[in-house]
Amino acid sequence: MSSRCDSRSWIGTIVAIVFVGPLFAQTVFADDKADADLRQQARELFPPLPKDASTNERPITPERVRLGRMLFFDSRISVDGSTSCSRCHLPSFYGTDALTQSIAVGNKRAPRNAPTVFYTALQVSQHWDGRFVDVEDQARKALTGPGFGNADEQSVEKRLEAIGGYPAAFREAFPGDQKPVSAQNLALAIGAFERTLIVPSRFDEYLAGKTDALSSDERAGLRLFIEKDCVQCHKGAGVGGTGYRKFGVFSDYRAATGTKNPDKGRFEVTKKSADVDKFKIPGLRDVAVTPPYFHDGSVNRLNDAVKVMGKVQLDVDLADVEVNAIVAFLNSLTGPIPADYERVPRLPAGGFVPSTPAH
Amino acid sequence: MSSRCDSRSWIGTIVAIVFVGPLFAQTVFADDKADADLRQQARELFPPLPKDASTNERPITPERVRLGRMLFFDSRISVDGSTSCSRCHLPSFYGTDALTQSIAVGNKRAPRNAPTVFYTALQVSQHWDGRFVDVEDQARKALTGPGFGNADEQSVEKRLEAIGGYPAAFREAFPGDQKPVSAQNLALAIGAFERTLIVPSRFDEYLAGKTDALSSDERAGLRLFIEKDCVQCHKGAGVGGTGYRKFGVFSDYRAATGTKNPDKGRFEVTKKSADVDKFKIPGLRDVAVTPPYFHDGSVNRLNDAVKVMGKVQLDVDLADVEVNAIVAFLNSLTGPIPADYERVPRLPAGGFVPSTPAH
Repeated sequence: MSSRCDSRSWIGTIVAIVFVGPLFAQTVFADDKADADLRQQARELFPPLPKDASTNERPITPERVRLGRMLFFDSRISVDGSTSCSRCHLPSFYGTDALTQSIAVGNKRAPRNAPTVFYTALQVSQHWDGRFVDVEDQARKALTGPGFGNADEQSVEKRLEAIGGYPAAFREAFPGDQKPVSAQNLALAIGAFERTLIVPSRFDEYLAGKTDALSSDERAGLRLFIEKDCVQCHKGAGVGGTGYRKFGVFSDYRAATGTKNPDKGRFEVTKKSADVDKFKIPGLRDVAVTPPYFHDGSVNRLNDAVKVMGKVQLDVDLADVEVNAIVAFLNSLTGPIPADYERVPRLPAGGFVPSTPAH
Repeated sequence: MSSRCDSRSWIGTIVAIVFVGPLFAQTVFADDKADADLRQQARELFPPLPKDASTNERPITPERVRLGRMLFFDSRISVDGSTSCSRCHLPSFYGTDALTQSIAVGNKRAPRNAPTVFYTALQVSQHWDGRFVDVEDQARKALTGPGFGNADEQSVEKRLEAIGGYPAAFREAFPGDQKPVSAQNLALAIGAFERTLIVPSRFDEYLAGKTDALSSDERAGLRLFIEKDCVQCHKGAGVGGTGYRKFGVFSDYRAATGTKNPDKGRFEVTKKSADVDKFKIPGLRDVAVTPPYFHDGSVNRLNDAVKVMGKVQLDVDLADVEVNAIVAFLNSLTGPIPADYERVPRLPAGGFVPSTPAH
């Protein structure tokens, strides 16, 4: 019995080696080659995600990050104590607020959708129209903008001075500074924190060489994403965020999204006719978990957003199966929520009398 | 040399044993006796903190807690997507919002201060005037109240049905239920989560027998807290929250707090003249980290609040040194933030079109 089995299995093995083996190896090697080519292409388009988005001009220190994290979550920087950076960039919603347009001080609705704060420090500029040069510029100007109640910087500084714990935290973050509690330092600290909000996803494992970090469906989606030329814009470590592009290259975006919003994007900043309807190319990291989509939050489902993109940007009618594949790939761009974001900081105690009238 | 030293140290030892030892032992034992008495008194006033606030009528299951935690942090249960339970009970501020009075949907300011949600399920009722019988009652009625935009229950149920992830989570939390996604189940789930928000502080270690869990200053404060009869009201596992008491037993509270608020407390619910100015006795756990104080948030500093209490409730002018001691004790009631509160849940993705008009 055992010898018969042995001889049969020997015959099987010889057959396998002589006939099936080469066929199998050919297929496997062809797949390996295709996979290697795909990854090679991807690596050229998507350079490695940095550990953080600090630069020589914008260095980060643990003390600045610690302070910035506190300020980011502290609603007492707004005039009525209702609004912090995290009101529009909630940890529960991957750094967004799940609204078409954010709501802030005075129940005012912002003109555009709040993108995730994760990875945003990698981008060429901040806001959909690029009106802020970097996250520090955004933080400082937001502080005195309508979202936070048009405060003056001095009143915010005075408020922070009065909250036990903040003056010391500012001093630690900005040693040697004559006036540590300042709007400028607030912006630098919040910016430092935001520059840490960068966490690799499965896609980064794939780029680093682990083929099966992406399923075969996701790899097929990546291939389509490249072949259909989505990567014309959505490239770089942030999978976008590197420049501006007209929304609606081949047809008016408003027809495709059903929006009645007259928003002309970067034109609002530059007033150049060439910039009409131009928007910053959004980074697509975490895109699957941060609906609704586009600058006006006009589209709820990612599949629909991909279809619109194909139509108005590339003049391509993507088939459902193609859309599904691309969406599968986009899902692999969902990273973990940064640990120090999902777990919010404890803030120094201090009551606050809002200026909002009672109703 | 060494023998002289030895004989000297022997003489010292003998002196110590014969003369100093008994004096020392007497002092230590007297201190031990006083400490033991103090702890015994404290244990009679403050029964052990339960692991959670579940009851036979309000059982909790991991599935309900998990769902309730999600709903608690989900702003999509409000009509405009701006407000969740956590808008007034922020993790960063120990389950409060650091405002005198909370701000919710439509920029409306609530008539009273939001107390911490921690330990609240232990209390005899919910809200300052006890208008809600328990946390589930509060959650259900808040959902359709002004804070969340006067929604009808059906519209909220419909919204939750449409968010991928919620129907399954409701089914798991309420197996066998014909209509799992319901306002009633939402309230039961949020209540179940809130019933878990109970974490021991150093004071509980002290009660359990670890004397040096409290410093000698804090123990002195505890002694005063008992001797001055603060414990007439602030007793029980929650250090309060067991009933109602007139705010201003010996003089009008408005004069002491400087408030112009005409709030008559429980009278607003019962319309009985005996209930004018009666409020639920607040639980004092986490009191040191949850300013501002009183039902109207009229007092910012804990020292001032303790002084007001002595004056209007006990007809006692507490000296600063006494106030400091009591405040030292109150600091020992600060517990850790529950881990599943400080770390917020990830919510299922789904964009939301707010009904708030654009500004």
